[in-house]
Amino acid sequence: MAEHAGPDKPTRFQTHPSNYRHWKLTTSGDVATLVMAVDADHPHRPGYELKLNSYDLSVDIELADAIQRLRFEHPEVKALVVTAELDRVFCSGANIYMLGASTHSFKVNFCKFTNETRLYLEDAAANSGLASLAACKGTTAGGGYELALACDEVMLVDDGNSAVSFPETPLLAVLPGTGGLTRLVDKRRVRRDRADVFCTTAEGIKGKRAKEWGLVDHVVARSAWDKSVGERAAALAAKQTGARGPAFTLGPIEPSVTDAKIVYRHVELTIDRAARTANLTVRGPDAAEDIEKVAASGAEPWALRAFRELDDALLRLRFDLTDVGMVTVRTEGAPGLVADADRQLAEATSGFAREVRLLQRRVLRRFDNTAKSFFAVADAPRSCFEGVLLELALGADRFYMLADGDEQIGVRTSVANQGFMTTWNGLSRLAARFYGDDAQPAKVLAAGAEGPIPSEDALALGIATIAADDIDFADELRIAVEERASLSPDALTGMEASLRVVGPETLETKIFGRLSAWQNWIFTRANSTGEHGALTLYGQPERPQFQWKRT
Amino acid sequence: MAEHAGPDKPTRFQTHPSNYRHWKLTTSGDVATLVMAVDADHPHRPGYELKLNSYDLSVDIELADAIQRLRFEHPEVKALVVTAELDRVFCSGANIYMLGASTHSFKVNFCKFTNETRLYLEDAAANSGLASLAACKGTTAGGGYELALACDEVMLVDDGNSAVSFPETPLLAVLPGTGGLTRLVDKRRVRRDRADVFCTTAEGIKGKRAKEWGLVDHVVARSAWDKSVGERAAALAAKQTGARGPAFTLGPIEPSVTDAKIVYRHVELTIDRAARTANLTVRGPDAAEDIEKVAASGAEPWALRAFRELDDALLRLRFDLTDVGMVTVRTEGAPGLVADADRQLAEATSGFAREVRLLQRRVLRRFDNTAKSFFAVADAPRSCFEGVLLELALGADRFYMLADGDEQIGVRTSVANQGFMTTWNGLSRLAARFYGDDAQPAKVLAAGAEGPIPSEDALALGIATIAADDIDFADELRIAVEERASLSPDALTGMEASLRVVGPETLETKIFGRLSAWQNWIFTRANSTGEHGALTLYGQPERPQFQWKRT
Repeated sequence: MAEHAGPDKPTRFQTHPSNYRHWKLTTSGDVATLVMAVDADHPHRPGYELKLNSYDLSVDIELADAIQRLRFEHPEVKALVVTAELDRVFCSGANIYMLGASTHSFKVNFCKFTNETRLYLEDAAANSGLASLAACKGTTAGGGYELALACDEVMLVDDGNSAVSFPETPLLAVLPGTGGLTRLVDKRRVRRDRADVFCTTAEGIKGKRAKEWGLVDHVVARSAWDKSVGERAAALAAKQTGARGPAFTLGPIEPSVTDAKIVYRHVELTIDRAARTANLTVRGPDAAEDIEKVAASGAEPWALRAFRELDDALLRLRFDLTDVGMVTVRTEGAPGLVADADRQLAEATSGFAREVRLLQRRVLRRFDNTAKSFFAVADAPRSCFEGVLLELALGADRFYMLADGDEQIGVRTSVANQGFMTTWNGLSRLAARFYGDDAQPAKVLAAGAEGPIPSEDALALGIATIAADDIDFADELRIAVEERASLSPDALTGMEASLRVVGPETLETKIFGRLSAWQNWIFTRANSTGEHGALTLYGQPERPQFQWKRT
Repeated sequence: MAEHAGPDKPTRFQTHPSNYRHWKLTTSGDVATLVMAVDADHPHRPGYELKLNSYDLSVDIELADAIQRLRFEHPEVKALVVTAELDRVFCSGANIYMLGASTHSFKVNFCKFTNETRLYLEDAAANSGLASLAACKGTTAGGGYELALACDEVMLVDDGNSAVSFPETPLLAVLPGTGGLTRLVDKRRVRRDRADVFCTTAEGIKGKRAKEWGLVDHVVARSAWDKSVGERAAALAAKQTGARGPAFTLGPIEPSVTDAKIVYRHVELTIDRAARTANLTVRGPDAAEDIEKVAASGAEPWALRAFRELDDALLRLRFDLTDVGMVTVRTEGAPGLVADADRQLAEATSGFAREVRLLQRRVLRRFDNTAKSFFAVADAPRSCFEGVLLELALGADRFYMLADGDEQIGVRTSVANQGFMTTWNGLSRLAARFYGDDAQPAKVLAAGAEGPIPSEDALALGIATIAADDIDFADELRIAVEERASLSPDALTGMEASLRVVGPETLETKIFGRLSAWQNWIFTRANSTGEHGALTLYGQPERPQFQWKRT
């Protein structure tokens, strides 16, 4: 199974439309069309077939790639139609046999990645003038309908047969846990008692009723289908005001991978399997660069490349390094260069620069949302927790700083710390850190504007968790890392999921917190995944046997 | 175990200070003192000892009773000191051996009840001029510190030894899941990286550092202890502006209990064990009554009595009827009487009337928060979904109404539906039902002000989920109940926990959703409750063995 694969057989999150097996991406003017055409014979791992446009991690990796490329490579596209070509099926959801055969850890990480990808659809609409239309010509079930819910509009064919449905609870004894329950009531504002009926009606709801209940936006006859899809896509495109571009082609990311190291251009992950720890180092730019000029030349600026590499490293940590629970995070670089890149991105008026910033924000949120303990560490003079890289220290569970006598080690703020880089709950990391104290973020920004904040000052300002001198630092850090790596990984995941989400909740955090936490629990229960559980027995003649205690 | 007890041996949630085994309640002027003095030899069920002021359900039932009685019976009390008499221990938290020996279902319901009780402490401070001070003279660990966090202020003795601590994660591989993680960062606004250090440091934090980190409000030497406690309690009392009273003595609630029925004065629960269903009927007042006059005479007005009975019935459903997953909810009464009681409570200026309303609100929240499927049913002319009882239909997962030809059946609104009866997330049930449509609640209230809203109109207004005529009604309801009772109880719990909390989240809903959902998951994991799990092995020489996969 995927999570057993070592780095000699890593999960590949990098792909390209020319390599897609499960989707076809085309563009025509300001409309792109992404056709789901899942190749049943090429699942993510052997053992099941991806029939009826059901999906697994491979399908979702391609979807994530397509959304990302549209943002960067096709700035002319203002509307994306997500559809399918099968005669009677839009998408039948996550593949049940895949779920039934997966470990708990894989299931949870798969769902998290899928949730992130769907939120990226919404992020593109909200921030980048790229709206989406789910054009559902046929059965739209489970995760298929959840994908549709992540689009701005949902169109369902009115053929007396095609329905949207959430059969998870009645048929599989699990939840529509990839955002489904949350989006029904919080995004689409389906009345909660109707949502209750809908979620327990395996065959779903079709036609006029689906529209009346707010489950879809349009019901359209087969005869008018193509015309209606075209019209709605054009209408969505016409409404978009955000301009992207100029176009930039995202190059391949191919790290060198050994058992002990994954090395990218700007990012390096070193792994200590015996200790179940890793160190993630992100390096700043090698030299000052004019971001837009570099991009115009076809080369990839640091601000984009480093964060794409970090994203890839985080996903490998989640999927391929499941036993690694404790990750130290270091940075390296010359002072001023990260802040300069941050400033360029913030001041630039191009859509490209904006896309780079939005990508950085998404990657930082992936960091926040990764179930590993992160201790940021500043212990060398070339340490570079500056601007957007300082966000890694603010997002980490702790921040250890070496208090060197000559104050070579410090943190530096930039415009990237002033509010744009929000977490999924809408707070900046500085605001979350000082939740309830509105003055402190400004104090930190003011101190950082005057130059580096040395370790002792960072401690006093509340940026460093611990600042220790040379005599104590190494021991203190070593003991903290060893202790952390000795604790129950489950308890740590639950603890971090609570402490990291300080303050308000949003649709997004409700999906990752409330909904996913319940789903994770349900995935462990005999009623779904036990020998006689409904997920286990799906497709077999035997009926599930339930334990009836209500919890 | 408690959840195996049938109704012949029910859990008793009713008690009285004269019967307390674990607490001593005294009052002196405007300050009450609640001394935790847990009787180790009287646990809730045999098999463990309640050493070191550890607690179990029995201890918490008494705490809930004490808080409730202070609100009604001691209106002169403005500050409550929660303390203990043991020399070196305030409270060592939930009893670990009890937790280790409990079923999952019991653990979860125990935690939920404990959470509710602690929220009632905060509710009393916020709404009833009854503040609380945790006076912690000694070890304040785990659930003991969580209890302290629910108080308005925390005072810790400064003796070089006494610490506050959350040893759950490092020692037991579970969470401080009774509000602890949430209150640390969201209520007390402890910085999240410090909270991380605190929650993984089994021995806790004491003295000045505890105060500096915001874990406690006051650290006080032993020599100054009694004086300081008295002064802080007096200061808290002096700050309170809400006036309660006149005093009202809460009489005993002693339903008649058989295997098939639990009968109270105004509430009746009938149980079909074979079908795993129950019906809960709440009856309106027998006749018009002047609430304050009735109370002054020492008799218990309907508005108070009926909701105290409903509260008791809900707790029995949770703890003693664990296999019952599907509950129909009916009401009975003459029109106008509930609305009249609602009006009296809303218009009265006495603290007593306000307390009754607040109690109704808490009980309705207990209803929202009960892991059973609730279908409200209006199928008889004496059906009485009026005012505060209409909240039951709005809080239920579905509302079935019989559309009788002569429109005898309808719902009626009152002042109770106008916003006071908020759910834990701060929305009224009408606002939650029509989330995103600000106009619809006003339309419903306007329609209800003109007289009863018959079933067909209630359907059109979005109050009824289903309105069916005589020919179809009984069959439709029967099939819906049977289907619901056939589904996985775990999936239903997770589904309802998502659909019922529409829109914003609050500290309270974060505790019941995010925190509790993670804790429920962790309780099912081998790392805590497996053969070699940390909770299982607590107190034994064997070290826990963890599975290291991060999820």
